[in-house]
Amino acid sequence: MAEDPIRFGILGCADIARKVSRAIKLSPNATLFAVGSRSIEKAKKFAADNAFPPSAKVYGSYEEVLDDPDVDAVYVPLPTRLHLRWAVLAAEKKKHLLLEKPVAPSVLEFDQIAAACEANGVQFMDGTMWMHHPRTAKMKEFVSDPQRFGQLKSIQSFFTFAADPDFLKNDIRVRPDLDALGVLGDAGWYCVRSILWAADFELPKTVIASRGPVFNEAGVLLSCSASLHWEEGKVATFHCSFLSNLTMNVTAVGTKGTLHLRDFVIPFEEDKASFSAATESCFKELVTGWQSLPSEHTVMTDLPQEARMVSEFSRLAKGIKESGLKPDPKWPTMSRKTQLILDAVKASIEKGFEAVEIVS
Amino acid sequence: MAEDPIRFGILGCADIARKVSRAIKLSPNATLFAVGSRSIEKAKKFAADNAFPPSAKVYGSYEEVLDDPDVDAVYVPLPTRLHLRWAVLAAEKKKHLLLEKPVAPSVLEFDQIAAACEANGVQFMDGTMWMHHPRTAKMKEFVSDPQRFGQLKSIQSFFTFAADPDFLKNDIRVRPDLDALGVLGDAGWYCVRSILWAADFELPKTVIASRGPVFNEAGVLLSCSASLHWEEGKVATFHCSFLSNLTMNVTAVGTKGTLHLRDFVIPFEEDKASFSAATESCFKELVTGWQSLPSEHTVMTDLPQEARMVSEFSRLAKGIKESGLKPDPKWPTMSRKTQLILDAVKASIEKGFEAVEIVS
Repeated sequence: MAEDPIRFGILGCADIARKVSRAIKLSPNATLFAVGSRSIEKAKKFAADNAFPPSAKVYGSYEEVLDDPDVDAVYVPLPTRLHLRWAVLAAEKKKHLLLEKPVAPSVLEFDQIAAACEANGVQFMDGTMWMHHPRTAKMKEFVSDPQRFGQLKSIQSFFTFAADPDFLKNDIRVRPDLDALGVLGDAGWYCVRSILWAADFELPKTVIASRGPVFNEAGVLLSCSASLHWEEGKVATFHCSFLSNLTMNVTAVGTKGTLHLRDFVIPFEEDKASFSAATESCFKELVTGWQSLPSEHTVMTDLPQEARMVSEFSRLAKGIKESGLKPDPKWPTMSRKTQLILDAVKASIEKGFEAVEIVS
Repeated sequence: MAEDPIRFGILGCADIARKVSRAIKLSPNATLFAVGSRSIEKAKKFAADNAFPPSAKVYGSYEEVLDDPDVDAVYVPLPTRLHLRWAVLAAEKKKHLLLEKPVAPSVLEFDQIAAACEANGVQFMDGTMWMHHPRTAKMKEFVSDPQRFGQLKSIQSFFTFAADPDFLKNDIRVRPDLDALGVLGDAGWYCVRSILWAADFELPKTVIASRGPVFNEAGVLLSCSASLHWEEGKVATFHCSFLSNLTMNVTAVGTKGTLHLRDFVIPFEEDKASFSAATESCFKELVTGWQSLPSEHTVMTDLPQEARMVSEFSRLAKGIKESGLKPDPKWPTMSRKTQLILDAVKASIEKGFEAVEIVS
């Protein structure tokens, strides 16, 4: 472990916090320092189950974590409806903020969180782990290459999984008082992020939700689709659902090349991940087959993508803490753009699938 | 070769007719019997270049092919605008009809062709070759299996290729007087067919074209997208384009399984083709990877898919000719449904991306 690792406090004992606790443990510049839950018993059990060091602080409230002067950064996996309150308070307490997605129920609330982080000079980052996989950087090289990929023309992103009946009724992600965006804020967040990532975070002009979204009894989205439109015919579509077999395909097509992968959010295996790249694909004479087949590229990683996320976040936090650097605005900007598109999809559904203009 | 193979006449010397001539040659129950072109010289050259037998008839007009009493069946690769005239005349001359796609500029014209075939007792089939690959039958088993695939929820189909500037201006497929449907009738035909195929040819309720279609100077489509909507949230999207790298991905997701392939129209290789199938995919503990990876399935074929198409068509034609069987209505029904969706996409574009109800 590096000297003076970033000391993490965790707010709440959400299931995803187990994965991120392991990531903090694996990250060379971060350490598990505190956990807080509304129940001290739950916090104690969480610390024990997740191999927190004996010195770790265990608190019976979120406030105590934020009041601990030795906590450098917090990871907040609370239900989205609680983000505004706890994320703003964390920033005000000068804690760097690693916030789970969706970052807020709406961009209006996110802007308050981002403003609090900016005013208090703390780093903001959302929990989109795949952004930090070295495969993502390799894919970016490919889609940015005018010779191999050319100009982006269309993107299709798919993230579905089959939730069980209990999840569809009771999970945090389908409760209007906790995560009102439903599948759109969960699986849809990743689809939208992958589209923006491929489009170099250029916002589309228009977003249109597709007909036929599926809701649960409480009115929360379980399945939906939408299309994003830029000028000159560049188009993206995505489909997210809690009602279909686990699938996470992205296809991005440029004038000269094609990127394709089938495990963009969670790679099939932890230590490596692949993507398929094709350039100037064409047919054989008489169109009896292909002349240039897509090639598979495998990228190894020494750390799981979530540990790389923690490391990058901690690197930025350390720069601020130790060298007086400014927070990197790249991460909150990406979060905001993603949230902006989610809001537009939701608005389009509410307006009967009308086109919604994007104003950044 | 089987006894009494079906004797084919070919109308015109289109580029695709070279591939189909080879397919007729490879097919055990079919034979190259005649070719007609408006130029006898072109017809002669075509027959010589494509290894027609010395006994083959070479005509300086399409009419002469249709008037030849020894021609059993015709393959018609003429521009779509000419289909009505020549397909109806072929049926009236009692020739079984293998017609290139798109089958007509509109379903209204197609219905006249289908009616002529029915009235004259001849078999109709369109030239959608991939329907005849043994891979397609294997994939159908998978998507029909309630245990491995479950109920179909969403489909995404992509067919794009990068045409050169000359094609974009002058090719038959982008000339309003010849193939007014442009990319929609060409690449889009295959996308729509793949969607209907996955949906067991159940027609959607609604079709909506996406914003941002691209046209050439003559007003013919070069790139477009659309979505198809059934009840209960089942949704399909497709994207077809002459402006992007060659890509042909289909993803179909059911409640229990996922089908994926990347060469659905033209398999990468001629003698075999693969698809990926996943069932009840799920994550490992802590969501650090997948527990059940998609598996690759490779299907060998003794004949290229286009030769299997010719064989199936010839088998049906022989049944009518030799055993007094009725034409198989399955093939014109699939053609009609495909055309109906193309018409709806076109209408939706013309109406400013309004939803178009499908009335079969």
